[in-house]
Amino acid sequence: MTTRLAVTYHVHGDAASIEARAQAIAVEQSVEMPLEAIDDPAVLHDIVGEVQSIEPIDDRSFAVRIGLAAATIGNDAGQLLNMLFGNTSLHDDVVLHDVALPAAVESAFGGPHHGVAGLRERVGAHRRALTCSALKPQGLTAERLGVLAERFARGGIDYIKDDHGLADQAYSRFADRVRACAAGVARATQATGHPTRYVPSLSGALNAMRRQIGLARELGIDCVLLAPLIAGFATMQALVAEFPEVAFFAHPSLGGAARIAPPLLIGTLFRLVGADAVIFPNFGGRFGYSPQTCRHLADNARSLRDGMRPSLPVPAGGMTLQRTPELLDFYGPDVMLLIGGNLLMARERLTDETAAFTRAVAAHDYR
Amino acid sequence: MTTRLAVTYHVHGDAASIEARAQAIAVEQSVEMPLEAIDDPAVLHDIVGEVQSIEPIDDRSFAVRIGLAAATIGNDAGQLLNMLFGNTSLHDDVVLHDVALPAAVESAFGGPHHGVAGLRERVGAHRRALTCSALKPQGLTAERLGVLAERFARGGIDYIKDDHGLADQAYSRFADRVRACAAGVARATQATGHPTRYVPSLSGALNAMRRQIGLARELGIDCVLLAPLIAGFATMQALVAEFPEVAFFAHPSLGGAARIAPPLLIGTLFRLVGADAVIFPNFGGRFGYSPQTCRHLADNARSLRDGMRPSLPVPAGGMTLQRTPELLDFYGPDVMLLIGGNLLMARERLTDETAAFTRAVAAHDYR
Repeated sequence: MTTRLAVTYHVHGDAASIEARAQAIAVEQSVEMPLEAIDDPAVLHDIVGEVQSIEPIDDRSFAVRIGLAAATIGNDAGQLLNMLFGNTSLHDDVVLHDVALPAAVESAFGGPHHGVAGLRERVGAHRRALTCSALKPQGLTAERLGVLAERFARGGIDYIKDDHGLADQAYSRFADRVRACAAGVARATQATGHPTRYVPSLSGALNAMRRQIGLARELGIDCVLLAPLIAGFATMQALVAEFPEVAFFAHPSLGGAARIAPPLLIGTLFRLVGADAVIFPNFGGRFGYSPQTCRHLADNARSLRDGMRPSLPVPAGGMTLQRTPELLDFYGPDVMLLIGGNLLMARERLTDETAAFTRAVAAHDYR
Repeated sequence: MTTRLAVTYHVHGDAASIEARAQAIAVEQSVEMPLEAIDDPAVLHDIVGEVQSIEPIDDRSFAVRIGLAAATIGNDAGQLLNMLFGNTSLHDDVVLHDVALPAAVESAFGGPHHGVAGLRERVGAHRRALTCSALKPQGLTAERLGVLAERFARGGIDYIKDDHGLADQAYSRFADRVRACAAGVARATQATGHPTRYVPSLSGALNAMRRQIGLARELGIDCVLLAPLIAGFATMQALVAEFPEVAFFAHPSLGGAARIAPPLLIGTLFRLVGADAVIFPNFGGRFGYSPQTCRHLADNARSLRDGMRPSLPVPAGGMTLQRTPELLDFYGPDVMLLIGGNLLMARERLTDETAAFTRAVAAHDYR
């Protein structure tokens, strides 16, 4: 019996052609050649994708479920994405909508090492929602970013992440920035007593990222940020395996380029490859995700799955202090609210504004 | 004077809102925060993206050109993609259409080490178009793939690439497959005298890919295939730098038809990060690219650029032997035609069919 992933694609088309189109996707995402040219019965039976169901969504689109053999993926996260959507991403009538993962695949990947509980533990917050802000703009010197980090931390915030645009640029080298920010946060922590965490953003290829994590670890940092679609899923998977003590924040950069439903990509797949926290564009901000999409994404990140820790959802992207109560009621306490630019607008009052944010989260009375 | 990349986005919208939308993209792809919260004049002047022009395309869309500071990218290929389209990919009203790269950025990346001339040299074909086929289906044992490779090579084909679905699966480990295919091709080469090259597909993270290239090199293999959007641009960049003697074929898997214009992604950017050959879905096959798109893509791959070798375009995806003359007239001789499934359909006559393909290419009289 072949173990299969059940992959749902949303396909534009008409009733007359959908069966042939579904079969073509099943072939494209498995053997990628005419079946009549295959003479091996085991390949035809165990490896070729199978159309499991076709359901109309509306007049012009269908939900097509295709069973793809788990054996074609093994435990390589890059190959997972390749088999789910590699060539079919090149067809503009198809969106990768959802995947039901067999238990064997889930356990082969394993998911987060820390997840919701681990991120709570790091900052000693066991019930309330967590808070986060972002260091920016890029172009500032390492010293100035370090000062910003200190001011955020003096407001009692839980996590301070690098903006995902901060890489290893000449005007602010990774090593200089991380030293300056770690020092700034340490000064604040001594004053506040709150164990604020700084989350540097990784860049470059695997070995550069390893060196960056190594440097961060020497400075006592135990959280990092990376963008799985930029770095490659396999890069993230390798780092998660190699640094089990580090918590990983996943950034959605480039996430829209290939038409993968956000609840699947960010909620399910980022978690699967080990993201402890998943950052995503919240509804009502600068991006077009709906409340339903955000709800579904957060549900996928936090859902109970045998043997897999939940990931912490981190709604972001144009959030404001004023929306804190609304968002806490929407997501509940297992969430990390990320407010960047709106806090930075306070300029010289940054620490006070950050403190107002952390107080609002701590004091919230959930509906 | 800030060196800037001139990035063209195609944006759906109306005349009343396009200026604000263009400005929002310029901010999103640079500092990603409200400008009024930035107090550093150098950041405002040198780092914030600038709207350079807005031109209507039709009633509902505009070409927006934005200047992004080269300093935000440095020479990191992952960061290049992050800055070109990271967050903006999450907005569904925008397509990344084109980039004009300053000479400093082109020389920082450098492009292919071998390109068109190097791929011609490897197989001793200095004028005619080159030929390629694909080993598949996945699910076959290493031994059976080795036999297939031998039969292709006995037909005198130039390059035999692994199907991009072939990874390091339990039913055909990379090491076993590469040994079997290298041996099969070597047997054929001894018989034909033609230096057919086998091009194995890499998978996993950077270190796994390095080991795979190391094994391939031990077996005398000097070409490999990888998918930059699966592996990560920085992974490809690192491998190209580390193995200058190896020729790299780039596969478009996860390339996402709708959001990054294929001539830019596959023709320009894959070349920029070092692809010697770029595989893409040809018009009239299984994918929806138009002849114009393919022409533009091939032009970008082969265009003269100071100090950068051209990449060889490899049209593929449902090609047939019958279309050989048409495609050679369309692309001219600086092309590698890739026919996979259509040759495999010949089954026991595979070598003869391959020989017919190689003869058709060698004998073609260009219009």
